Amino acid sequence: MFKDKESLNEKQLIQEFFSDVGSAFLVDRGIILGVGDDSAVVEPANQEFSILSSDTSISDIHFFNDMNASDIAYRSVAISLSDILACGAEPSWFMLSITLDSPSREWLSDFKSGLKDISSEFKIPLIGGDVTKGSLSITVQAGGYSRNRRIISRSGAQEEDLIFVTGKIGESYASLQQYSKGERGSSCIAYTRPQLRTGVALKLNGLVNSAIDISDGLFQDLQEICTMSNKGAKVNLEKVPHPFGKSFDYSLLNKGDDYEICFTSPIDNRKEILEISKEEGVKITEIGKINNSNELKLFNKRKEVVIDLEGYQHF
Amino acid sequence: MFKDKESLNEKQLIQEFFSDVGSAFLVDRGIILGVGDDSAVVEPANQEFSILSSDTSISDIHFFNDMNASDIAYRSVAISLSDILACGAEPSWFMLSITLDSPSREWLSDFKSGLKDISSEFKIPLIGGDVTKGSLSITVQAGGYSRNRRIISRSGAQEEDLIFVTGKIGESYASLQQYSKGERGSSCIAYTRPQLRTGVALKLNGLVNSAIDISDGLFQDLQEICTMSNKGAKVNLEKVPHPFGKSFDYSLLNKGDDYEICFTSPIDNRKEILEISKEEGVKITEIGKINNSNELKLFNKRKEVVIDLEGYQHF
Repeated sequence: MFKDKESLNEKQLIQEFFSDVGSAFLVDRGIILGVGDDSAVVEPANQEFSILSSDTSISDIHFFNDMNASDIAYRSVAISLSDILACGAEPSWFMLSITLDSPSREWLSDFKSGLKDISSEFKIPLIGGDVTKGSLSITVQAGGYSRNRRIISRSGAQEEDLIFVTGKIGESYASLQQYSKGERGSSCIAYTRPQLRTGVALKLNGLVNSAIDISDGLFQDLQEICTMSNKGAKVNLEKVPHPFGKSFDYSLLNKGDDYEICFTSPIDNRKEILEISKEEGVKITEIGKINNSNELKLFNKRKEVVIDLEGYQHF
Repeated sequence: MFKDKESLNEKQLIQEFFSDVGSAFLVDRGIILGVGDDSAVVEPANQEFSILSSDTSISDIHFFNDMNASDIAYRSVAISLSDILACGAEPSWFMLSITLDSPSREWLSDFKSGLKDISSEFKIPLIGGDVTKGSLSITVQAGGYSRNRRIISRSGAQEEDLIFVTGKIGESYASLQQYSKGERGSSCIAYTRPQLRTGVALKLNGLVNSAIDISDGLFQDLQEICTMSNKGAKVNLEKVPHPFGKSFDYSLLNKGDDYEICFTSPIDNRKEILEISKEEGVKITEIGKINNSNELKLFNKRKEVVIDLEGYQHF
């Protein structure tokens, strides 16, 4: 065990901070070999699909460097799980490849507590990864399994499908604004610890035609469904639930980082979808309809609204 | 399509440089959904284990920033595949999470050609990942499958096991020295494009008791086998094959980045192992023996040699 202010040895660091995160869930998740060997070994249950995602979070781009390390950890894992859920699959494990620059023991302990929080919430073990030295950057690979070999892709939207979103769009952006003003705690939680819609996501599998998690911005992500499905869409802006009060710039709905789910479904399933909303206690709102136009158009009470459809741009 | 010197849009960048790497192998590798959706979807063959590894390569730490982009790509993927092979498993796919800072189209094209080289060599498709903006860093997650649900772990070494290594130890370090002196081309290839021992690795599965890929340094990695197996080892230094001529500092054998395999096997399998060496045209050399001492000791012609057993230190 190294002491405070001693330089960290990689093996000790892994042993102390990364070797036992969620180890209680290893057996249930079919993990034969976890942290510490050349590779992790997973035994998938028969006849299931493996779902895999990878997301990189970089200091002062994807999170604030001065955020609690536990929130940085939680958030970095959450955004990768969000991709698994958007496919209607259940997260089962995660790997962490972290680049660190001389972190303190205190920071690492706090980081570990955030990893443990999300690991416990989803009952998923940390099964491997890599630790390297450099400016803080976190790549999380998450794995999951689909129920009954079904997945929800981005490319399945059909003409006349209804478009739905979970939660309120823009809450994360509003939280981020609070954080930037120096607020901390619960008013920032939609940004620091995005709440994923696990129950809803799993129940939508088999019921809906397409889905995407809203990371880059509602309109940009819905555009992605349209492009990949070779369809268009009409969105009724006045129906989109948001936290911004009466009069606001609609582009605030397109800031991203929501990690809500946008999905499209045949009209026949509307009732069942609203049932799921009730069962799971998660707001699900119908905001528009898919069409064959190949264009995404936004309307406010039947009047077309033209805004920049591009959300967060990485480059 | 963006033009030279135009700023890059993430989706175009993925589409042009990362969407079709190894796509010819998608079907054979059981990939249901590859690059472009929320997650990748893999259908594992029944009764097989999934083997997963993740490695991060950072500019000017794990590779030289001025290396050919194709070599950076090849090397970054190779070191992740090396972990899969050390488990005796066959690589099946890889994911790429890359952080880039305003790369030129020329650099990206060259990077893509390196990805295609290794993808073709191992018949593995790129199935997903992430692209973010920042200083150059590459995290590769590789996945593979074991034959007959068997894997080789680091922890299986038994007393009296013989210790073997593939190839020559230190060739990568010698190449690196050439590169640092301004040499390029074939004299640097052991460093720029490490040659993995695929055929040997797969044939060792079921035959040997433990294995590790030599990334941090022969002695450090063998120590890892000893620690995880709760054993010790005696290495005969004069037997270790190397490229350094007659008189040299033994610590050169411990520089790492070899990506050769160090493994231990019952003496009864010696003949079969030498057969594999012949069949695969890969040098395999017996360099010592496992014992119950819990210590790794080095000898030169029966005389103990004391050197720093720590190889590459990440922190």
